[in-house]
This record gives sequence, C-alpha cells and structure tokens, in this order.
Amino acid sequence: MKALVYQGPGQKDWIEKERPVIAKPTDVIVRMTKTTICGTDLHILKGDVPAVTPGRTLGHEGVGVVAEVGSAVRNFKEGDAVLISCVTSCGSCPNCKRQLYAHCSDGGWILGHKIDGTQAEYVRIPHADNSLYPIPAGADEEALVMLSDIMPTGLEIGVQAGHVKPGDTIAIIGAGPVGMSVLLTSQFYSPGRIVMIDMDPARLELAVQFGATDTIQVGAEDPVARIMELTENLGVDVAIEAVGVPATFDICQKIVSAGGNIANVGVHGKPVELHIEELWIKNINIAMGLVCTNTTPMLLKTLQSGKVDPGKLVTHRFKLDEIMDAYEVFGNAAREKAMKVILAKIVQARRLPAQAESGLRSCTHYEKPPPKGGFLLSAECITPPAICIPLNAKCLPLSALWSMSSGICIALFASCILRSGKCRKGNGICITLPAPRPLEAA
Amino acid sequence: MKALVYQGPGQKDWIEKERPVIAKPTDVIVRMTKTTICGTDLHILKGDVPAVTPGRTLGHEGVGVVAEVGSAVRNFKEGDAVLISCVTSCGSCPNCKRQLYAHCSDGGWILGHKIDGTQAEYVRIPHADNSLYPIPAGADEEALVMLSDIMPTGLEIGVQAGHVKPGDTIAIIGAGPVGMSVLLTSQFYSPGRIVMIDMDPARLELAVQFGATDTIQVGAEDPVARIMELTENLGVDVAIEAVGVPATFDICQKIVSAGGNIANVGVHGKPVELHIEELWIKNINIAMGLVCTNTTPMLLKTLQSGKVDPGKLVTHRFKLDEIMDAYEVFGNAAREKAMKVILAKIVQARRLPAQAESGLRSCTHYEKPPPKGGFLLSAECITPPAICIPLNAKCLPLSALWSMSSGICIALFASCILRSGKCRKGNGICITLPAPRPLEAA
Repeated sequence: MKALVYQGPGQKDWIEKERPVIAKPTDVIVRMTKTTICGTDLHILKGDVPAVTPGRTLGHEGVGVVAEVGSAVRNFKEGDAVLISCVTSCGSCPNCKRQLYAHCSDGGWILGHKIDGTQAEYVRIPHADNSLYPIPAGADEEALVMLSDIMPTGLEIGVQAGHVKPGDTIAIIGAGPVGMSVLLTSQFYSPGRIVMIDMDPARLELAVQFGATDTIQVGAEDPVARIMELTENLGVDVAIEAVGVPATFDICQKIVSAGGNIANVGVHGKPVELHIEELWIKNINIAMGLVCTNTTPMLLKTLQSGKVDPGKLVTHRFKLDEIMDAYEVFGNAAREKAMKVILAKIVQARRLPAQAESGLRSCTHYEKPPPKGGFLLSAECITPPAICIPLNAKCLPLSALWSMSSGICIALFASCILRSGKCRKGNGICITLPAPRPLEAA
Repeated sequence: MKALVYQGPGQKDWIEKERPVIAKPTDVIVRMTKTTICGTDLHILKGDVPAVTPGRTLGHEGVGVVAEVGSAVRNFKEGDAVLISCVTSCGSCPNCKRQLYAHCSDGGWILGHKIDGTQAEYVRIPHADNSLYPIPAGADEEALVMLSDIMPTGLEIGVQAGHVKPGDTIAIIGAGPVGMSVLLTSQFYSPGRIVMIDMDPARLELAVQFGATDTIQVGAEDPVARIMELTENLGVDVAIEAVGVPATFDICQKIVSAGGNIANVGVHGKPVELHIEELWIKNINIAMGLVCTNTTPMLLKTLQSGKVDPGKLVTHRFKLDEIMDAYEVFGNAAREKAMKVILAKIVQARRLPAQAESGLRSCTHYEKPPPKGGFLLSAECITPPAICIPLNAKCLPLSALWSMSSGICIALFASCILRSGKCRKGNGICITLPAPRPLEAA
C-alpha cells in the first residue's frame, strides 16, 4: 500500500509500505477513504516532535471502512464505515475510567506519532472498540473527518475547559482550523459576543460567516486595547488561545476579566511568562490539555441534527495520492487560503476524463446554485464506484434521489448533498447539473 | 481611639486616631474585641502594596461587638457580636450576583487597604449586612478570627479551586497560616494523602498534628524527586501553592499529574515562567484568586459542628495595645514558632495580677491536661469581665459548667473549652485548675 512517511526533519515521502496487520485481538485494520492534514503534522515535519522517528506514517484523522477485525473486537465488523478518533484509548485504565482518554496508559495520541497513522491506504487502530465510531447512515464524510480531532479539540479544550456560558463575551485568538472549531462549537453554549482575533483578514472574514460577532486584525489594530474598548475595560469572560506562541498567550492574560477563564488550545514549544503578580488576585482559571475525544458522541449528534456543520472548514480537496501537493497547499495556508484539506481515496473508481478530474480540485462547498449553471459532483466524495450525475433537475427531494437507479451512485449523491448542510429526508437542494458526460474506463 | 497605622515603607505606629463614624446608611461601626496580623500586613509594611497610603489603619480580620449601625442596616443591632469578613461586598453588583465578592464593584478587599482596617479599637464596615456575620452563641472567638480571611482563603482558593476530591493525593507547598488552612479545610473532602512541603521542620511537625500524612522538608530533600517517589512518578492530583514566590510555583508545575490541578493561593510580586511547552498536553488547570468569603457560612457550620478547629492555628496571644510586640513576633515567625497571633481587647476587664497577666502570654491550646497540673484560662478569651476559674475538676460536662455560677464567667469558660475542640453539649474536657486566686481591681 501507499503511505505518507516522515523521513526525518523536513523530509516526507509518499511511498510503498507494508500493509498493516492485526497485531492484537483488539485491533482493527481500516481502509482509509478520507483523511486530512493537521498543523501537528507540519510541526512533526519540522522536527519539533522528537517522539516521531523516521519511517513513521503520519496522520491521526480520517474515516474509512473496516477491512479486518481482531478476535476480541465486539463493536465492528468488516465493511463497517468508521470514524477514527485521533486519541486511542483502552477504556479500562484509571485515566480512561475518568474520561481522561488523552492519558490512557496504553493509548492517547499515538496515531501518526508513536505508531503508524492515517495518511495511508490502510491503518491499524488499537483498542478499536473504544477508538472508532460507527458512521451514521447518510452522514457527510468530509464533515466527519473534522470530528477526528479539531472539532472535539475546540469543544473540549477551548469551549468546555474555558467554561463558555450563555451571554459570555469570548475571544478566540487564532482563526486557524482549531480556532474555527472553537468558534463553531462555542455557539452550542450561546455566548453573547464572539471576538475572533487573527492577522489574516481572509480568515477573519470567514470567521464572521461562521458566527463571530466581532473581529480584530492583529497588525492593523492592538487586540488588547480593542478588547478593552469592546468590553468597557472589563476584559472577556473567556480568552481562548488557538495558536501556540508566547505572544498570543500574552494577549489572553491581558484581556481576561476578573472571574474569567483562559483556555489554551495551542501547542506550545516554549515557556511563557505568566503575569501571576497581576493575575493572582483576579480569580481566573487557566486550562490546557490534549483532546480526550469524550465529546465525539455529542458532536456526532450535533452533526446529525444539523446544529453544526464542520464540513464548512474544508477548503481544498485532493485525491489521496496527491497528498504531496496537499501538503504544499496546507503548508502555505495563508497564501492558498486553506483551512482544512480533504484527501480522498477513490476505491475501484473508473477513471474520469481530464476535464472532470480538474473539476475535482475546484469542487467546493456550494450553499447555492453554482455560478455557471452547473457543476460536477466531486468524485472523491464517492465510495464505492463513482460517476458524474447526469441530471437536469431543481430542488430534488432526497427521497427522489434515493429512488433513482440509472447508474447513479446514490451514496455519493446523498453524501454530497448532506455536505451542503441541506440534505435531510424530505429536504432538497437546488442544483443545475450539466448534461451527461462520457467516462473513460479505469 | 488607638489604631495601628501604616506610616510609609518600614514604618508603623500604634497611635491615637479619630474613632470612625457612620459614613453611609449601610455602615456599621464595630468595637474590636479580637484581631490578628496577616502576612499581607507585613507585605504592606515593606511598601509592596502601593494602594496603601501613609495614615492607613491596617488589618482585615477580627471579631467585635456592634457599636453603632447605619439607618439602612437590617441584619445587625448595637451589642451584636460579629465576625468581620476580610472582603466587603455590596451583594447587588454583577460580580456579587455571581458570588465573586472579591471583585464587588464597591468592595472587595478594602479593609486595611483602601479604607481603615481592623487593627484598632473601632472599625467602620461598609455594606455591613453583607460583610459581617453574627457570631453563634458559645462559639470560640479566637477560632472565628481565622474565619475572616485565612480559612476561607485556604478553602476557596486552595481546596475548592484545586478541586480536591476523595482519595486524591495533594501537596501543599508552604506550611504558613494559609497553607495550614488549606490543610485543615482540604480534609472536608477526604483526600487520601496530604503532603506538606516547607523548609521549617517545626511547621512540618505541626502539619502532621493537623492531618498531613507526609511531609517534605525543602533543603533537606528535593521536593520534586520525593513527590515522584511517593506517587510512582504520576505526580499529585492537586498542587497547592501557599507561599507566593516563583520557586514554589515551579514545584507545583513539576509535580502536577496529568489531569491534575494547580491552585495558587500565594500572593506574588513577580511573574513566573510557565512551562506550557510541557504542560499544554497534560490536561491541567491552574487557578488563582482572592478569597470571595462565600464559604464563610459553610465554615461557621463546620466550626460549630466540630468538623474543624481553626483555633489550633493560634500560637501567640497579646493584648491589643501590645500590637507592636505582636508584629515583632509575627514578623519573625520562624524564630518565634509563630503561626497566628491573637490580639485581644479586654473590655471593662478588671485588672489581673501580674502573675496572671504573664500567664496570658504563654496561654496555648491544651488538648490534654497542662503539664504543671493546672493552668490559668486566658483573660483575653473573655468578653465581658473575666476572672480565673477557681476549680478543681476533671472531665466536667459542659452542662455542668453552664450551671455553675459562683463568680465564674460562663461565656468565657464555654469559649475556652470550645476552642479546645472538645466542648459540645454533653461533652467535657479534662482540666485540672489551680486553687482560687485573688484578683486586683481594674
């Protein structure tokens, strides 16, 4: 099989590697259908995470299909579609018993770190019964990939550890994928004001679309002065650090109000100066930690009920074997306006014509009819064999789509519509599709 | 009246000053009967708290008797015995509504800081209905003085903010009065192991008497290595900082376990280096703040029910007008083996003979019969007129004491016995008292 392998600082390769096998009875082998790249992977590639040794397959996020199960696995069987949690947990050690899965004595964050990860055609998942989630029927797989890590991280380490409450004024420092996950999940708890702080005006604009009530562009404005102005000098109830450098932590300690919370979500490489000589009297709390993924079931429910659409965070799509290109794009996120990239494996797909393939790259999330009166549903949404949808239709109810059978991949169609956040039973979507297009044989 | 006045860095005086008067309808004037000195007062005297200006009467702890009430005061009347909270709170501002009394918009820690304090014969207490507590009948007034500040500070900022749970291993760094208050109040929540860390072996010995299961003497042992040895390299569930310097905070961040808590109780004058590059992944919480005193009612109940005996913390007793000597002793706490000093004002007391007076100074807390077969109950426990108890008795039940009437100050007696932690209805105390002793007229 192919895998994205860390070859030492600054070096990675998409190479042929042995397909993983069941090592313990509690293991499952998952055939990956979608994965993504995390900021942590970039850190590893810089050589910042010495626990990752050359030869390691990277990646700790994704969805797939169960290919093989160990003899002790109770909850999964071959062919099940599964969501992979970035945190592996045995479920029975003292830390697991208190839901501190991040510190499971035989797990924690090990995927793409201490054992081979998900940026490959296959991955071995230890303690599978506790570390995989069945994918609900009809769920949007791209959105689900966001539930492997960034969404629970934002919710648990930012929102919940920061004790966001109804009416609160909160500030999120850093509008990257995790900061955006904080933004999306904070809205479960109805804060009154959400101030997003970042250097990149494009990301701030996106933050407003995702629910930020105010934005502060670092560089153009002094974030501390602006927050004090916005809050009548009280500061914010919750300051959430989602970058991981001393300067952004420092903003948090300067803007937190008496009785407030600082939630550190960023991964830091250096100590910070804590101004305890000013903060000791302020009755504040500073929380930090690695996601435990104990909110994954909750997030699955919010996704299914349409309370949140993490699929919004996907800006770029690639085929799995284009992963080197995807790293290039994600590694230059500001220039490329990238938030999250999706890498999809087309299983047994017939080959699409060149024109269709190029269309895949530009396939984005359409909330309204595409500008040119038609678009090609992206093949990388498809499991298994995919074709383009040869329809001329408007506002098709989902039930109608499900009843169509002339060579159309229904699963694909449902998935793509679900991804738009508008496709539930009895619901529909306005699309105008191009005329049938010939397919090349694989 | 007389008051202990800050005269600028390094200077204080016990001088004649105007008796305070009602300034607002919500004020009460309290005639002080007992007060104490806090480490914070020593900080102020060093010039470390610039908000305190020369001429300010120090002190934020104590008990007394209501001398005058403002027209809007509902809960108190002249003659009521009251406990003074170190934190003044209006009860109605947004911070008070969320029990964040430390940050009341018209209060907080103002006594002996922004307004004149309790180290005086009289003190003005603003927002008296919310800032005073009635003293329960028969309560030990010395123990109550510990409820003005150090006991709620230890409980709220150390124990509760540190989320001490049954079975936890906790470490308290600093066996001073506040560290000892953490030690006493932590036991409400049944931690499994309480490790007290300090440089002073005498304080550590006292800590064992107060319930510490383990002690570590800094200087003789490496506290971090020792904690790791005690905890099988896991670290402690809760690390409580009760000193206020970078070195002790640093111990906390090195010994806290994954999923643990650091509760900072110490008052700091300098920033600390927070090792977030190691801690970010550990799912820890760091809490800090000023006491809100919202646990004062709870502490009063625990005191009355005998669950805790903060009177244990009193090591030295002085008359109020010996306060300059008391500062000398408290300022050299290690040399003097001082924990908390009590300053008592004997109201209308007849003068005791010289021998009896000298006895006052050495009056300590007897858990068992005093060594010389008898002791003089200290006159400063007494409000109002006091005499020595002329008894030869053993294990007197409290009811018997209450029924005696031959010139004995029952209130005194009840109070002194209560202080021993053994005096509840139907309970008794083993004492052998000397023969009657003549009293001099005042």
